[in-house]
Amino acid sequence: MTNDLSELNVPYRLLLGPGPSLVHPRVYRAMTAPVIGYLDPVFIQLLDDTQRPLRTVFRTENDFTMAISGTGTAGMEAAIYNVVEPGDTVVVCQNGYFAVRMADMVRRCGGEVVLVEADWGKLIEPERVEAALKDAGRVKVVAIVHGETSTGVLQPLEEISRIAHEHGALLLADAVTSLAGCELRIDDWGIDVCYSGTQKCLSAPPGMAPLTMSAQAMEAVAKRSEPVRSWYVDVSMLQNYWGGGNARAYHHTPPMTMLYALREGLRIVLEEGLETRIVRHLRNARAFWTGVEAMGLTLHVEEKHRLTPLTTVRVPEGIDEMALRQGLLLEHNIEIGRGFGNLEGQVWRIGLMGYGSSEENVFALLYALETQLAKQKFGRDRGAGVAAAARAFAAD
Amino acid sequence: MTNDLSELNVPYRLLLGPGPSLVHPRVYRAMTAPVIGYLDPVFIQLLDDTQRPLRTVFRTENDFTMAISGTGTAGMEAAIYNVVEPGDTVVVCQNGYFAVRMADMVRRCGGEVVLVEADWGKLIEPERVEAALKDAGRVKVVAIVHGETSTGVLQPLEEISRIAHEHGALLLADAVTSLAGCELRIDDWGIDVCYSGTQKCLSAPPGMAPLTMSAQAMEAVAKRSEPVRSWYVDVSMLQNYWGGGNARAYHHTPPMTMLYALREGLRIVLEEGLETRIVRHLRNARAFWTGVEAMGLTLHVEEKHRLTPLTTVRVPEGIDEMALRQGLLLEHNIEIGRGFGNLEGQVWRIGLMGYGSSEENVFALLYALETQLAKQKFGRDRGAGVAAAARAFAAD
Repeated sequence: MTNDLSELNVPYRLLLGPGPSLVHPRVYRAMTAPVIGYLDPVFIQLLDDTQRPLRTVFRTENDFTMAISGTGTAGMEAAIYNVVEPGDTVVVCQNGYFAVRMADMVRRCGGEVVLVEADWGKLIEPERVEAALKDAGRVKVVAIVHGETSTGVLQPLEEISRIAHEHGALLLADAVTSLAGCELRIDDWGIDVCYSGTQKCLSAPPGMAPLTMSAQAMEAVAKRSEPVRSWYVDVSMLQNYWGGGNARAYHHTPPMTMLYALREGLRIVLEEGLETRIVRHLRNARAFWTGVEAMGLTLHVEEKHRLTPLTTVRVPEGIDEMALRQGLLLEHNIEIGRGFGNLEGQVWRIGLMGYGSSEENVFALLYALETQLAKQKFGRDRGAGVAAAARAFAAD
Repeated sequence: MTNDLSELNVPYRLLLGPGPSLVHPRVYRAMTAPVIGYLDPVFIQLLDDTQRPLRTVFRTENDFTMAISGTGTAGMEAAIYNVVEPGDTVVVCQNGYFAVRMADMVRRCGGEVVLVEADWGKLIEPERVEAALKDAGRVKVVAIVHGETSTGVLQPLEEISRIAHEHGALLLADAVTSLAGCELRIDDWGIDVCYSGTQKCLSAPPGMAPLTMSAQAMEAVAKRSEPVRSWYVDVSMLQNYWGGGNARAYHHTPPMTMLYALREGLRIVLEEGLETRIVRHLRNARAFWTGVEAMGLTLHVEEKHRLTPLTTVRVPEGIDEMALRQGLLLEHNIEIGRGFGNLEGQVWRIGLMGYGSSEENVFALLYALETQLAKQKFGRDRGAGVAAAARAFAAD
């Protein structure tokens, strides 16, 4: 048997793309804690330990608040598959890639999709949702993305939640990029199903997907006439393990190491304070926005609707966007993301998330962007971006 | 905001249950490598790097050989969901818990289940499979468990594979506990779909599920008339990322840290050599079997059908099995598993898997078992178990 596998050798990258984001050093350390059994009393305690801060971060009292053993997409699958069954009508608000994915999942559950569409980079207007609900007859779920990672839009949810509930529908929201980086209030806003991922503003590696479901959503699960189409993410079985008191029913072996990472990530959020963390994301994003605009670049989303952890910057006419990203990665060790779907080739996606959202990273990134743009003969005065960001921080 | 989360403090346990098994120290170290982006050229190289040794360990040339971003159950879901669609008939060979789960998943895919049953602890006889195939009409898949973690049976697959193929069916096998611990030959035995987990004989934490599919299985996926019912584990999309050459299509953000762990686990297997590793599992299991029998305990499975990484020991009459497990955990820091399903309360499940399968652990466990049994007034001469194991090793 030949062994051609060399020693694992992974470079450090400053991860300022759409995710995974920079992992907090304490989270790496937490992951070296020994793996123990899924019924070990210590592990059961850690499960309980993790549910409490998850409720805090989601701002919810929902009893069913846990983490799915997969990445954010598994969280989306858990959210949709548990509440949708064949014949259900779901209004999917589609103004970006992740809502396209939602619609695909609804169809795989046998649900009927009613689309409410908007341009990629614009908001979903509540009136359009209301009109769709009036037209569609009985609607089980309204599905929407809170922080659209593909477009950089932060979608207000309160009004749409009110409308959904008036029509007897559950509100399901994707908070993969917004949780612990933006204001998100599950109970106050009446969100019935909400999921996220560990690899964005929680500063842990990808591998678990926080999920919370309201009593109404759990009632809908209990009333299903068919089993959930996925076994792996069936919450009626998962709750017997996560919420099982002393009698924990085996469902699957959870990824202990990822739970340790999530727990440490949550601990760091609580130490900083959720409000402080949200303000930090806003402050760093604003300075970054000021800096890129001073460099002559344009932002894709109107300021009042911008997602602070993820910014979409328009690719200027004549710029080779891939060459710029390659230059950032190979010469500055900085990763940013490309646009995709309807925005392919049109934007860069830049993340200032969790541990990665810092004043220092704003300057590192602006300097590197300016350097790469200058190579392509784009830009005004050198230093315009970093200077503008410095003034923005000073004025803030 | 209150922060009542204490520092993560996880005790070391000698994990000798059905899994998770002991993680190799080098795997813990690999997991501290920095998380990088899923399109980073270094990460793409690591994906390719991991597929090669996976093929070696599975003993296959299958092009589609990768790892699902979830635990072993997600691997089962990927295996079944991709090849089964509504109306398909699946013969499920059911002689333990994991085949019960398989049948449940087949039904959630809209498939019809034909059961071939045997007692928990006995083999599935090929003639019974043949009879079922003759009766059932067109069968798409025969599903079977190679190493049944709930019973401790190692199921021979060659004959059943031949029969399945004669009837135009695919063979799907669960190798969660057998991969890298028992002989398993995907290509020689004609297994079309096979999955495993990282947390058994690969000595990594739970979190990824190796999966391999033959060209025939991939053809069945390509010919589907309906999309796979799970989006998360849809291999037609996953292969565009894992096997996409330079053009990698985004599907979901994979758990980088878990991939590092899997890669390091595979590296360790290749260093030891697969054959040497399999012999080590056999040698340690045999000595353990000799030891427990010398203590007056009975093994649940006939010797020639025993799974070496996982042994089922009968709970003697009058013994409080839970008290024994609690004593092992709290007084010796050793975890073993309870029986469940049809074997609830009847057996203990003891794993000597991967890094955990060592001479030293055999003695640690036999001594601890003897000590706990003596507390419940069971046993012959003290030291009988360890002495018998020592003689067995010497004679081997």
